Amino acid sequence: MRVIETVRELQSLADAERAAGRRIALVPTMGALHAGHVSLVDFARSRADRVWLSVFVNPTQFDEASDLARYPRTWASDLARCREARVDVVFAPSAAEMYPAGSQTWVEVAELTRGLCGASRPGHFRGVATVVSKLLAAAKPHVAVFGEKDFQQLAVIRRLARDLCFDVEIVGVPIVREADGLALSSRNANLDPEARRQAPCLARALEAAERAVAAGERRRTQLLELVANEIGKAPRAEIDYADLRDPDTLEAAGDPLAGPALLALAVRFRGRDGGSDVRLIDNRVLLPSPSSLRGSSTRRSGT
Amino acid sequence: MRVIETVRELQSLADAERAAGRRIALVPTMGALHAGHVSLVDFARSRADRVWLSVFVNPTQFDEASDLARYPRTWASDLARCREARVDVVFAPSAAEMYPAGSQTWVEVAELTRGLCGASRPGHFRGVATVVSKLLAAAKPHVAVFGEKDFQQLAVIRRLARDLCFDVEIVGVPIVREADGLALSSRNANLDPEARRQAPCLARALEAAERAVAAGERRRTQLLELVANEIGKAPRAEIDYADLRDPDTLEAAGDPLAGPALLALAVRFRGRDGGSDVRLIDNRVLLPSPSSLRGSSTRRSGT
Repeated sequence: MRVIETVRELQSLADAERAAGRRIALVPTMGALHAGHVSLVDFARSRADRVWLSVFVNPTQFDEASDLARYPRTWASDLARCREARVDVVFAPSAAEMYPAGSQTWVEVAELTRGLCGASRPGHFRGVATVVSKLLAAAKPHVAVFGEKDFQQLAVIRRLARDLCFDVEIVGVPIVREADGLALSSRNANLDPEARRQAPCLARALEAAERAVAAGERRRTQLLELVANEIGKAPRAEIDYADLRDPDTLEAAGDPLAGPALLALAVRFRGRDGGSDVRLIDNRVLLPSPSSLRGSSTRRSGT
Repeated sequence: MRVIETVRELQSLADAERAAGRRIALVPTMGALHAGHVSLVDFARSRADRVWLSVFVNPTQFDEASDLARYPRTWASDLARCREARVDVVFAPSAAEMYPAGSQTWVEVAELTRGLCGASRPGHFRGVATVVSKLLAAAKPHVAVFGEKDFQQLAVIRRLARDLCFDVEIVGVPIVREADGLALSSRNANLDPEARRQAPCLARALEAAERAVAAGERRRTQLLELVANEIGKAPRAEIDYADLRDPDTLEAAGDPLAGPALLALAVRFRGRDGGSDVRLIDNRVLLPSPSSLRGSSTRRSGT
């Protein structure tokens, strides 16, 4: 396994691999790797000859300085996990490598970034779109793999890759969950024990809505009330947003639901004793047709 | 010579050329090719095995609908010129190919686009930066060649290529001029005969400033007064802007001049009988040190 720290070196290797006819899959991460990332690596290997994983805690996508400061950094164990998962190249650039002096170019995706996390985290998706553009240009992958937990991020990245003519296939991989349903996330490490016990409320809320849809419920207000009720059972949890959207455009889903609808949820666990909040997101695509419900691929068993 | 209309086909060819070890030079144009473009092609050939020229009148970089409508389109003669100049591939996508339905991604370069043409043409550089990013991703060139007439555009493109990690060298080629000094531009074709006779005032203004600097003048106000005087001699001409800037950052040049300074000039020729205006730009890098003046490469003899 090779660790590369500069864009230039990565591009040279990309050229050599491509010239030799080998396919490259890129798995962009911010480190703090968990089983969810490993599932991305496994998927990537099924689609390419070489799996490259980037570890870069991108400062420009953090809307809160405290969130950036507290974002878990676990370099040694990340490297071990990459080795174990048979990653071929770990790209670990410095902030100065990705944002050299005088940097001033931003990639902005318009409509898709306006609601949901875009509304609660100003500038977040600009940072994501910019760094992902850089990583795609740096690694020149044939395919790039992202988790579906960050559903809006995935939609934004699909859009920018298409709009900016990047010669890459963007693939989403289903959420991996803990046994109690909590979606794997690097930020879970920041939950205190009590908040961790309450954190499965997100998954339970999504499940409640899914059951209601399976039982015939199609009304937006009723579905979101179910979500609010489930989150309400967790005393430390506060809904940041809960909404039903078209899974492709992220525009408001029809009311009543007439086709697949993304139920997207963000919940904030207030910090204790002056500690910072931890904000978690989760989502599920609700399928109003009973027959297709069983085929839903947005859920996977825990690891 | 091959004409290619889709991004996908261009990318396949780029991959094949790169895999075969051949270097690609891209010359992005909006068509209406003239001797200035031919000089870009000639330069490109000196730096690569294959010269690709794109012809795309990019709608998103026009801040005035009338300017877009009147932009000269000379496809048949463009093709003939490309053949003559031994271009290998002409990339001529449709607007729908470059901006497919749902397009919403923009590349924004911040500080560099704030003044000069960025101030008089809102949205212009966002359109330029976006389309050039797309063209670079579509053609995957080793080198991309642009004219120095659009000095600010060149600075913006250098910056975005670096910031977004594009694996390409951006090269500027000196301005080509008519015998009377007028910088070649596709928009010159829109000048009525009287405006055309007055249009060399831009070049004369730059020359006057250059002579003054050679004679020891370093004061901003005096240099810009010389420019205003020269433009004032052309009754149809109105200065849009005239300014002295740092050639790299495009920030205000020192006053008095202490090092190389970009003298950038935009002049509007008012339309007659309700016709549209024609706006021309020109520039020269002024070199306060007498010894280096002789080495200035920003001027070339006419064609």
